[in-house]
This record gives sequence, C-alpha cells and structure tokens, in this order.
Amino acid sequence: MIVDNLKPPYFAVIFSTVLHENIEGYIEAAKKMEILAEKQPGYLGIESARSEIGITVSYWKTLEDITQWKNNIAHTEARNLGREKWYKQYQLRISKVERAYGYKF
Amino acid sequence: MIVDNLKPPYFAVIFSTVLHENIEGYIEAAKKMEILAEKQPGYLGIESARSEIGITVSYWKTLEDITQWKNNIAHTEARNLGREKWYKQYQLRISKVERAYGYKF
Repeated sequence: MIVDNLKPPYFAVIFSTVLHENIEGYIEAAKKMEILAEKQPGYLGIESARSEIGITVSYWKTLEDITQWKNNIAHTEARNLGREKWYKQYQLRISKVERAYGYKF
Repeated sequence: MIVDNLKPPYFAVIFSTVLHENIEGYIEAAKKMEILAEKQPGYLGIESARSEIGITVSYWKTLEDITQWKNNIAHTEARNLGREKWYKQYQLRISKVERAYGYKF
C-alpha cells in the first residue's frame, strides 16, 4: 500500500536489504516489527517491496520519533537477529522529505 | 543492487507505484529511463524493488540535479506515458539524506 496522505516536511527511513538464502523466522519477525512500529509515537506509515533486493520505507513525524523507535527493546533484538541471521547486506538512510506529490487513478 | 558508497548529505527521490494489469511497454521504458538517468549530472545511484507495489529510490547530489532530470525531454515523455498507461497510483517524494549506515556480510 502506498502512503499518500502526508504533508511535508516529515522523515523517511529508507531501509534496503539483501537477504541470505535461509531466512527462517524472517517473515514473522518483519511482520511483528511492522505491527509494533505502527504503535510508536510519530509513526506515519510504511511502504515495502521485495524482488532482488528489499526496500522498506517508513515515515515519521520527527527525528526523535525515529531515535525512539531505534531504541525500542523488541526492535533492537530483532535488528540483532537480522544482522546475525537474515541480512547479507543492508543500508539504512534517514532522510527529510521536503516535497511530495502523487496521483491516484 | 544496494547503493552503499555515498556520504551524506545527498538527495533521494522515493518513487512508489502501483501498476495497472496491462503494462505493455513498461519494463522496456523503465530500463531505458534507468540507463538515461545514469548519464545525468549529479546521478549517484538507484535501487529498485517490486512486489505488490514498486519502490524505486534514485540518489542525487543536489536538488538542481533532480530538477534537471525532471525536465529531461525523454524523461518527461516517459512520465506522461506512465500516467496515461501504466500507473494506477504513484507517489513521488524528494528527500534529503542526512544520515546513513550499512553493513555487508
């Protein structure tokens, strides 16, 4: 689902990943983290797609909200598992959305 | 492929799309635009994934580089075709990457 109801400025966390072949437990953990993220202060929405690589973009009101989510204990544990077991490579970028426009048929 | 060689600050264009069922010509046009984007001044890289939705993130040195790419004639024509034929929905966001970190196994 595309997040199309936001008014800049706000923040986007762009998380790009390459997974290992064996990703046992990953789908469940990712789903759990999405549900947990939705409950965090400042959460605005999430978009996700995966083919050769995965790209998940989550949207937040402020940088402080992103830091708080980063420091969430369950999220920290899931990230550690991710580095140990699931991610062959990842890149995380924190960015400020300055302009946005869209279209819906 | 994940773009992992950039040093903030730089800019990210986050382009999220939902396609129509019939996307005749889309794959070719998208590939052509990627090749053309690579030749633009200020281009830094691109990441792309598609499952239920598509997310393409292109990276640029400056906002002016993004505007120049937006005004490129072939790119403008492809965008018009996209709106007419391929995209059921899209959202384009221009953001400034302020922090980034990554990991490669």
